[in-house]
Amino acid sequence: MVDLAVEIALRRHTRATLTSQLIEGIRRLIRAGRLVEGDRLPSTREGAAALGVSRNVVAEAYDQLAAEGYLEARVGSGSYVAPGLQASLSIVARPAERRVGPPRPLPTPSLRFNAGNPDLRSFPVGAWADSLKRAALRSRERDLGYRSIMGLRELREALSGCLLRQRGIRCDPRLILIVSGITQAVDLLAKGFPPDDRREAIVEDPSLEFVQRAFILNGYRLRPVAVDEAGLRTAELPAESRARFVCVVPSHQYPLGGILPVQRRAALVEFARRKGVWILEDDYDSEFRYQGAPVEPLQLLAPERVVYFGTFSKTMFPALRLAYLVLPEELLSPLVEVKKGLNLFSPTIEQAALAEWITSGRYDAHVYRMKRLYRRKRERVVRAVEACFGASARVLGQSAGLHLLLELTARELDGATIERLRSAGLEIDWVEESAVRKGGHRGQIVIGYGNLSEEEIEAGVRRLAELLG
Amino acid sequence: MVDLAVEIALRRHTRATLTSQLIEGIRRLIRAGRLVEGDRLPSTREGAAALGVSRNVVAEAYDQLAAEGYLEARVGSGSYVAPGLQASLSIVARPAERRVGPPRPLPTPSLRFNAGNPDLRSFPVGAWADSLKRAALRSRERDLGYRSIMGLRELREALSGCLLRQRGIRCDPRLILIVSGITQAVDLLAKGFPPDDRREAIVEDPSLEFVQRAFILNGYRLRPVAVDEAGLRTAELPAESRARFVCVVPSHQYPLGGILPVQRRAALVEFARRKGVWILEDDYDSEFRYQGAPVEPLQLLAPERVVYFGTFSKTMFPALRLAYLVLPEELLSPLVEVKKGLNLFSPTIEQAALAEWITSGRYDAHVYRMKRLYRRKRERVVRAVEACFGASARVLGQSAGLHLLLELTARELDGATIERLRSAGLEIDWVEESAVRKGGHRGQIVIGYGNLSEEEIEAGVRRLAELLG
Repeated sequence: MVDLAVEIALRRHTRATLTSQLIEGIRRLIRAGRLVEGDRLPSTREGAAALGVSRNVVAEAYDQLAAEGYLEARVGSGSYVAPGLQASLSIVARPAERRVGPPRPLPTPSLRFNAGNPDLRSFPVGAWADSLKRAALRSRERDLGYRSIMGLRELREALSGCLLRQRGIRCDPRLILIVSGITQAVDLLAKGFPPDDRREAIVEDPSLEFVQRAFILNGYRLRPVAVDEAGLRTAELPAESRARFVCVVPSHQYPLGGILPVQRRAALVEFARRKGVWILEDDYDSEFRYQGAPVEPLQLLAPERVVYFGTFSKTMFPALRLAYLVLPEELLSPLVEVKKGLNLFSPTIEQAALAEWITSGRYDAHVYRMKRLYRRKRERVVRAVEACFGASARVLGQSAGLHLLLELTARELDGATIERLRSAGLEIDWVEESAVRKGGHRGQIVIGYGNLSEEEIEAGVRRLAELLG
Repeated sequence: MVDLAVEIALRRHTRATLTSQLIEGIRRLIRAGRLVEGDRLPSTREGAAALGVSRNVVAEAYDQLAAEGYLEARVGSGSYVAPGLQASLSIVARPAERRVGPPRPLPTPSLRFNAGNPDLRSFPVGAWADSLKRAALRSRERDLGYRSIMGLRELREALSGCLLRQRGIRCDPRLILIVSGITQAVDLLAKGFPPDDRREAIVEDPSLEFVQRAFILNGYRLRPVAVDEAGLRTAELPAESRARFVCVVPSHQYPLGGILPVQRRAALVEFARRKGVWILEDDYDSEFRYQGAPVEPLQLLAPERVVYFGTFSKTMFPALRLAYLVLPEELLSPLVEVKKGLNLFSPTIEQAALAEWITSGRYDAHVYRMKRLYRRKRERVVRAVEACFGASARVLGQSAGLHLLLELTARELDGATIERLRSAGLEIDWVEESAVRKGGHRGQIVIGYGNLSEEEIEAGVRRLAELLG
């Protein structure tokens, strides 16, 4: 019989309890083959005496090892090493320590022109910190549990008012679904239908790659339809398509920046109604419109066919991860089923804090303040492009949003050039990369200016002109 | 020419600006057919005079309507209603107001025995509120943006230490991926591989329905393998399977409560290695183990084959929506690609607050306190079942977790009986419902006691016995 006191050195005053040290010690002996099938272990009394610990410690260790299958207790006879272990354990011999490579050096880009980020330095974190604290203190038992699949009731009610005020959308809060972002929205939509032959989505070409990828990863084929300066070319909507969805960004198309005119809106709605297609309207950037009043959402034209998407990533900050859908009645129950079935819901305390911001008017005030800031930045970009590029580039899509488009008038770019810009520290989005059908957008670069200061904008555009010069 | 002043009544001192009232007014006239294709609108000067507003207001409204496609400006001639509108607009005539049904009455169950919810009334919201506030104030610019796809660095570092201390898992923080929960984990795994012929997942039968559904909704077939009181019956692992994943809950199987013995662990690892199958280890409930030391995770046996999943839903609260994966080196880059490609990441302020709880020791202290609480509750359930059911039921899977299993010894239940229990206010999970192959678990009910008081437990078990009596 093995002498536990010789084989296992128990240490006191360490983090690990005596019991867990003993368990680990016996496991080690079995793995090393020092204890083999059928070996009898000391009784709890003998073991305790040998190791200088209480019988409880030994008994607990044996119980645990029996529960894990290392030992078996025979009534009236003691504990024995269980059969079948050696063969099993040789198979699962520990592999060598995992190879841990050195951390890859991250490039430190001087200027991030990528679209999407709002001005993070101007976000009032102090006020948000207070709201979060209040929201946590206010949270009720049910808010902390699993019961908010649709989203927090108070946020959906606040949103309902906000949508009417700002976008003219009338919707019952029960048709609003809180999601984490556009890809979760697409995921829910894609999964809300059976895997039939309508797994096809019409997407604007070019358009946001996240949306394209979310459809593809859900087994959908993409059907690209070209975009021009006025958005989706609805005349090219495929007559023979079996598409289930058509995705549009009618307020400020990403990346080309067009506003979909009412004729195309009508054509799109007519197409959707005739073919039973659902329109996913991403109302991207509609809050930051600098010329004229906000454009009417498509949702107003066809609330029974349009899934309206809005996000707080641009008006608040991206890491908040809160966005929403306004659903047509018919889609409510299938989408809620998917959300329930996958237990997908968003953190509730941040939802409550956001609801407070909306109902108190603080949210509107923040958006208003940011809009003035972005307007100034946008003017700075336009002026810098004029000064540095002259007639060799023009600016498109500048009526709204946090980005605009720089189009080289007499030149196309290639991957190598883009790579060169990036390694020189200019993080830019090349429109060609978000095009489904390649070749048509080689001269276009997105200039996201939301999170750059006016000085950075000026320096960045100048650097861009130099590198492309 | 239409007289705008007659047709459109502008109101001052309302929320809507004069410009947006004028825009909406003209849109209305076009939709109603009062203004038709080719009609000329008053000049901005005429319009301004007629309406008693500044020329700017009219000019802005015309610009906006031109951007939307309602009007077209002809140089030197003025603004005209654009062609092709009537046909378009008749198609998109507004449908009747959406039918909004009365809210469905929610049953108000007196006792929720569903598994999964921890004790929400005992969560120290005050301390959490303070941590959230501190985390928000500490947050840096980059934490608010789009840069934390893997999860917040400080949380992954804190977790790395926590995993070593509590579960013996050694892992570099860069192999830790923060996710929102088990279904997002499955989603990432399912999407991390091409849609080939290995779209099959071996699941424990019965097991958590969320996991089953997440695979199915990603186009996977399920391959159920039976579970007994010691967890997955590894002898029944399909020899001919082309499965890509096998999902197990080895520490405290849900719902049966078994602990997978080391022989089966070894067999499972051997199977996974031989067939190139990935093991998804859901270390569900391992924190709340009442008998003996925690069971060793599978991850220690085969870190190169096991994807380890842990969640904070039980130790903190579900609406926090934070969980994590420890990945084998080989899966890191494909999963990060999916996460990046879909822009899936979790709110960063709550991650920072959680990291603070872990590194300060507050998290361990909270888990320890809760464990004592749950141990008392568990004893109360066991006593109540003995008192109310006697020999007609036995309790299984009571060594860990927030639930145990009530098995009727001489009786099977059917859907109608379960429905009757539920409408009487007892929300219970019937094991038969989470079984893939039906018929084998009709006498088993899950008793989740995490969020019930001792009095509620007692009353609930008594009521259950009466209704089944």
